Amino acid sequence: MARQERAIRTRQKILAAAAEVFDEVGYEAATISEILKRSEVTKGAFYFHFTSKEEIAQRILAEQVTAIPPIQPQDLALQEAVDEALLLAYLLHSGDARVRGSVRLTVEQGSPQDGLDRRVPMQGWISRSVEVFEKAKANGELVPHVDVALIAKLFVGSFTGVQILSNIMTGHEDMLERVSELYRHLMASIAVPGVLIRLEFTPQRAQQVYEAALAQSLQSAGEAAELV
Amino acid sequence: MARQERAIRTRQKILAAAAEVFDEVGYEAATISEILKRSEVTKGAFYFHFTSKEEIAQRILAEQVTAIPPIQPQDLALQEAVDEALLLAYLLHSGDARVRGSVRLTVEQGSPQDGLDRRVPMQGWISRSVEVFEKAKANGELVPHVDVALIAKLFVGSFTGVQILSNIMTGHEDMLERVSELYRHLMASIAVPGVLIRLEFTPQRAQQVYEAALAQSLQSAGEAAELV
Repeated sequence: MARQERAIRTRQKILAAAAEVFDEVGYEAATISEILKRSEVTKGAFYFHFTSKEEIAQRILAEQVTAIPPIQPQDLALQEAVDEALLLAYLLHSGDARVRGSVRLTVEQGSPQDGLDRRVPMQGWISRSVEVFEKAKANGELVPHVDVALIAKLFVGSFTGVQILSNIMTGHEDMLERVSELYRHLMASIAVPGVLIRLEFTPQRAQQVYEAALAQSLQSAGEAAELV
Repeated sequence: MARQERAIRTRQKILAAAAEVFDEVGYEAATISEILKRSEVTKGAFYFHFTSKEEIAQRILAEQVTAIPPIQPQDLALQEAVDEALLLAYLLHSGDARVRGSVRLTVEQGSPQDGLDRRVPMQGWISRSVEVFEKAKANGELVPHVDVALIAKLFVGSFTGVQILSNIMTGHEDMLERVSELYRHLMASIAVPGVLIRLEFTPQRAQQVYEAALAQSLQSAGEAAELV
């Protein structure tokens, strides 16, 4: 294994272990020694990559949006918006520690001293939504006078809350149903009828979207490895 | 001042101080000594009312729904649903520490050991919403086939998230606009057209709703005092 590749793996191991700890106990109570233990990397290797708990947390927040595997392209941009939400819901529902830890870091208010900038992932999701909705608008999928910047915040905000409610009430058990229901209602207020009727929101679709995204990213990783 | 009345005031002081501390630093980092300092009550008085930090937090969670002053009755049940949301948004926006501390306790995941039951306030809001939507349904304000239990969860969940997003991005500065926008979209998916067109969602309405609710509860408190 090339030296660079080994370094990337070590870094990934640390981030995955840290996300797991953040998911379980939150930022405040998480310790570097616990992260070290879980990641099974040496102290030296750890401090080669990161200097503090804050730095790891900020890195996890920064990579929140890009850590999700890309979904398959769809004819309708609004279907892509639905699929991205279903995929994120699926990852939270199935207990993906990296995603859950990152999401917990985002929504926890923390103390004014913790220095974490939680706007980074939120702005990332908002920008991603603006992009998809702009495409939908250009395609004529949106009803007239929809303000793309406003609905991007609306979708990101309400997804966040539905996620929290599902976690509190059922430990993410009913996450797919809740997100499916949310999108059904929100899309009804922005999509033209001919598009609305073609959108698929079912919880079952979430698993298909996940499997297709996973297969695609494994294939991309394989191709990248062959190039080395 | 009657003995009982004094006890009620002391208890309220403790709860208000605790909510303030929970709002600022979260449950984990809050200490009884800080709560004592802020509430300016003696240790003896404190332990007469509460035995632990957990007990105070659970009490604040339990009283979250009832701590909000009741809104004025409206012709349309859906307007009442909007007004309750605007009022809560107004209290968060204006920095009401009791409400903010309580809401922070609810949405923070905590550690598995903290023993707080965050389902209590969420279930409270869901039940409250079911009640209002049942009334709307009986009045013929809802489009056919709306499942009241599902939309209650939808509204509570998405309000929660819009609140969090507004807090992260603007420190609740744009809270009224975000909630107004959310309700505009969600109501469009459940209200019959003749009702939808009559609903008022403006951020300006939030302040009117707050002032009317406040005047009403001051009057009720005055009447109760006269009865003593």
